[in-house]
Amino acid sequence: MVSAAVDGARLLSRLDSFAAIGGLANGGVDRPAFSPADRQARSLIADLARARGFSVAQDSIANLFIRRGAEIGAPLLIGSHLDSQPTGGRFDGALGTLAAFEVLEALEDRSVRTETPVELVVWSNEEGSRFAPGAMGSRAFAAGVMPAGAERDSNGAELRVAIAETRAALAGAVERPLGFPIAGYLELHIEQGPILEKAGLPIGIVEGIQGTTWLAVTMTGESSHAGTTPRDSRRDAAAALVSALGRLQDAIMPGDPAARFTAGRLVSKPDSINVVARQASCTLDLRHPQPERLAAIDAQIRAVLSEAAISHGCSLDIELLLAASPAVFNADLVAAVETAAERLQLPSQRIVSGAFHDALSISAIAPSAMIFVPCRGGISHNEREFVEPEHVVAGAAVLLGATIDAAHRLARRGPGASN
Amino acid sequence: MVSAAVDGARLLSRLDSFAAIGGLANGGVDRPAFSPADRQARSLIADLARARGFSVAQDSIANLFIRRGAEIGAPLLIGSHLDSQPTGGRFDGALGTLAAFEVLEALEDRSVRTETPVELVVWSNEEGSRFAPGAMGSRAFAAGVMPAGAERDSNGAELRVAIAETRAALAGAVERPLGFPIAGYLELHIEQGPILEKAGLPIGIVEGIQGTTWLAVTMTGESSHAGTTPRDSRRDAAAALVSALGRLQDAIMPGDPAARFTAGRLVSKPDSINVVARQASCTLDLRHPQPERLAAIDAQIRAVLSEAAISHGCSLDIELLLAASPAVFNADLVAAVETAAERLQLPSQRIVSGAFHDALSISAIAPSAMIFVPCRGGISHNEREFVEPEHVVAGAAVLLGATIDAAHRLARRGPGASN
Repeated sequence: MVSAAVDGARLLSRLDSFAAIGGLANGGVDRPAFSPADRQARSLIADLARARGFSVAQDSIANLFIRRGAEIGAPLLIGSHLDSQPTGGRFDGALGTLAAFEVLEALEDRSVRTETPVELVVWSNEEGSRFAPGAMGSRAFAAGVMPAGAERDSNGAELRVAIAETRAALAGAVERPLGFPIAGYLELHIEQGPILEKAGLPIGIVEGIQGTTWLAVTMTGESSHAGTTPRDSRRDAAAALVSALGRLQDAIMPGDPAARFTAGRLVSKPDSINVVARQASCTLDLRHPQPERLAAIDAQIRAVLSEAAISHGCSLDIELLLAASPAVFNADLVAAVETAAERLQLPSQRIVSGAFHDALSISAIAPSAMIFVPCRGGISHNEREFVEPEHVVAGAAVLLGATIDAAHRLARRGPGASN
Repeated sequence: MVSAAVDGARLLSRLDSFAAIGGLANGGVDRPAFSPADRQARSLIADLARARGFSVAQDSIANLFIRRGAEIGAPLLIGSHLDSQPTGGRFDGALGTLAAFEVLEALEDRSVRTETPVELVVWSNEEGSRFAPGAMGSRAFAAGVMPAGAERDSNGAELRVAIAETRAALAGAVERPLGFPIAGYLELHIEQGPILEKAGLPIGIVEGIQGTTWLAVTMTGESSHAGTTPRDSRRDAAAALVSALGRLQDAIMPGDPAARFTAGRLVSKPDSINVVARQASCTLDLRHPQPERLAAIDAQIRAVLSEAAISHGCSLDIELLLAASPAVFNADLVAAVETAAERLQLPSQRIVSGAFHDALSISAIAPSAMIFVPCRGGISHNEREFVEPEHVVAGAAVLLGATIDAAHRLARRGPGASN
C-alpha cells in the first residue's frame, strides 16, 4: 500500500485564497466562466502548479490540465471546475479542484508514483449561467467537438472571444487536443442536497447521476363566466392541470423515494379571478436514477394529464425540453472510493447525484466515479453554501486514497474494457 | 285580467337602433358608463319616452326614470342598464331596458292602468368596467349614498365630472332624490350562462342570485434544488397548492351541482423549471345560492388548503377579497313571473343567477325578481353575444305579464311587508 496523506491546513488555506477571487462581501463568489475572475483563478492554480514543478496544459475550449513531471500514457483525471454561479458558493467546483491539487501535492510530497498517471483537470464553464449549456468543457471533451449553445452572454460578449482571451491569459501552457485518451475520472464535489447531512455522514459514495426529463405542459380549454358556467359546460384548463398535478404530487414521490418530481412554473390565462382559465401551463422536472423507472413515471405523468384533459374537455400539449439518461458510474472506481473511505474509517453511504456534474459527460467515455461531502442544509448555488472544514479534509483524503487505488485498478484493466 | 300585448317587431327594431350606438363592426357594442355613447343611448330612450308622452327623471348618480303620465305613489320599477363592456354584446342590459320600454308602450297602447304605478329605470354604470364597482347606480339607490370606488377611469377622467356631464346631457329631466320609495323591482336579462339553452327553454324564472366568496390564497415554502431535494426535505409551495386545488376540484362541483368553484389565477415563484417553488398563489371564486352551503364549502376549502400546507411544510395565507351573501328574490314576484310564463304557454324552469345584476342591490330594499332568456352558447361580455329574436319577444311578453300581475300583488301588500 502506497503511503501519502493530505495536508488539511494547506487545502483549507487554498480554499480561502480562491474564495477571494471574485469574492463577495458575505463569503460567496461571483466567478462566471471565462470572466476576468475565472482567468485569475486559473492563473493562480497554474502558478501553484509550476511552483511545484508540475506542467500546465490546455485544450481548445480552455479545459486546464496539470500533471506531475513527465508521466506519460492515458491518465486518470481528477478535478472539477473553478467557475461559479453569479452569487455562488465558495465550495461548488473549487473544493473538487483544490482537493485534486492537494492530491497531486500529497503524492509529490512522498514522491509516490501511481500505476496510472494522475492528472488534474479544471473543466471550463461547468455552471453554464453565463453561456449555456452547462458542463460545456467536459461535454466538448467527451464529444471531441464544441456543444451547440449560446454564442453570446447577456451583455453581448462573444463566447468565441471569451474562450480565446481565457486561453491567451495562460501563457506558456502546453496545447492538448480536445478529448485526448484518458484512463478514468474521479471528482470530489459537495452534495448540493441534504441527504448526507441528515444521515450525519461525512462521505457519499456516488454510484451515478440520476436521469432527468424536463416537460412543458399546456392545457387548453375555453374561457367562461366563473359564476354562471356549470361543471359540465366548463372547459377549465386550470382545473384540468391542478387536478392532474395534485394526483401526481400525491403519487410519484410518496410512492418512490428515489423519484424527484417538481412543477416549478405555474401560469394561467387570462389570469382573471372570475374567468374560467382558457389555458394553464406548467413545467415538470422529473428525475430518477433508474432509466426504466424514469420512463414508467414519464408514462404515468402523460396518462394522468391526458385523463384530466379529457375529463375537463381540454386539449393537452406536452413538449419534451430535455431527456438525459441516468449515468451509472464504473463499479471498480466506485469500489475504489468506498475502500478509501473504509480505510480512513470515515462513515459513508452510497448515493445517487441529483444534480448534473462534469462526471456525467465523462462517464460516457471513461470509467468515472464521484465523492460527495455534505453541505450545510443542502444549500448550494447560494452565497450561504458552507462545508465543515473537517468534511473538506475528509473528502480530500478519500479522493487521495481513491486516486491511488483507482490508478492501481485501471492499470490492470485491458484496453476496451467497459466504462 | 288586464289585456295588453308586446309588439315584437317594434322591440327588435329598437334593439337594432340602440346596438348602433357605440356599435362595433361585428355586431357588438362599446358603450362604457357615462361615455358619449352612453349619453346618446340615454338621450334616445328619453326622446322615445317624450314622444309617447311619458315623463323623464333622473337622480344624482344619473339613474334614469321614465313614467307614464302623472301616476303617483311608490312605483314598481322595471328595467336594467344601457352601459356595456368595452367589447360587449348588444343584449346585456339593453334587452331588459328596451323590453321594459316596450312594456310601458304596450300598456299605453291599451290605456291599461296598473294597480301599482309602473316606472322604467335605467341604472347607471352596471358593468363597472370603466369605473369600479359595478352596479354603481343600483347600489347607490339602495344605500342612498354613492358607493366607494374608483374616482377616475384608466385615462384619468373623473367619475364626478363624467356623472355631471351625463346628467347635463339630459336637459329638462325631473330631479329625483337618490333612493326614493319603490314598491318592487322586475328585471329581464339574458342568462349569460348555458343552462336554459341546454334545457331548450325560452324562459328562466330567477329565484335569486347566488352568493360569492373571493379568496386570494398564498402558500409559502422554500426554494430548493429540484434534482437533489428529497420529498421529506422539500417545502414545495406549488406542490402544496396543486395538491389542495386538485382535491377541491374533484370534490366541490362534482359533489354539489349548484356550486361554482374557479381557480382563475395561478402564479409560482421563482418560476424556474429546476427550482422547487418558494411561493405559489391562486385566486378562488366560489359561488352558491345557499348561504349555509357557501359557508360549508368555504370551510372545506380552508381545511383542505391547511392540510396541504402542513403536509408540505408550507405556511398558508388566505385573504378574503369579497363576500356577497346570496339574494333570495321575493316569492310573490317570482310567482308573478312564473304565472306570466305559464299563461303565455312558454316552457320555463326556476334558475339561480350566477352573475351579479342590479336586482341584487335592489332586492335588499324592495321585493324583486328577474326573468332570464337564453343566450347562444351561454356567451356574454363578448361581441358574439346573441339572443334568438323569438326569445327576445318571449322575454318581453313575460315581463309585461309579470309587471301587470306584480302590480296587482304589490297593491295588496301592506306597508312594511317582507321583501
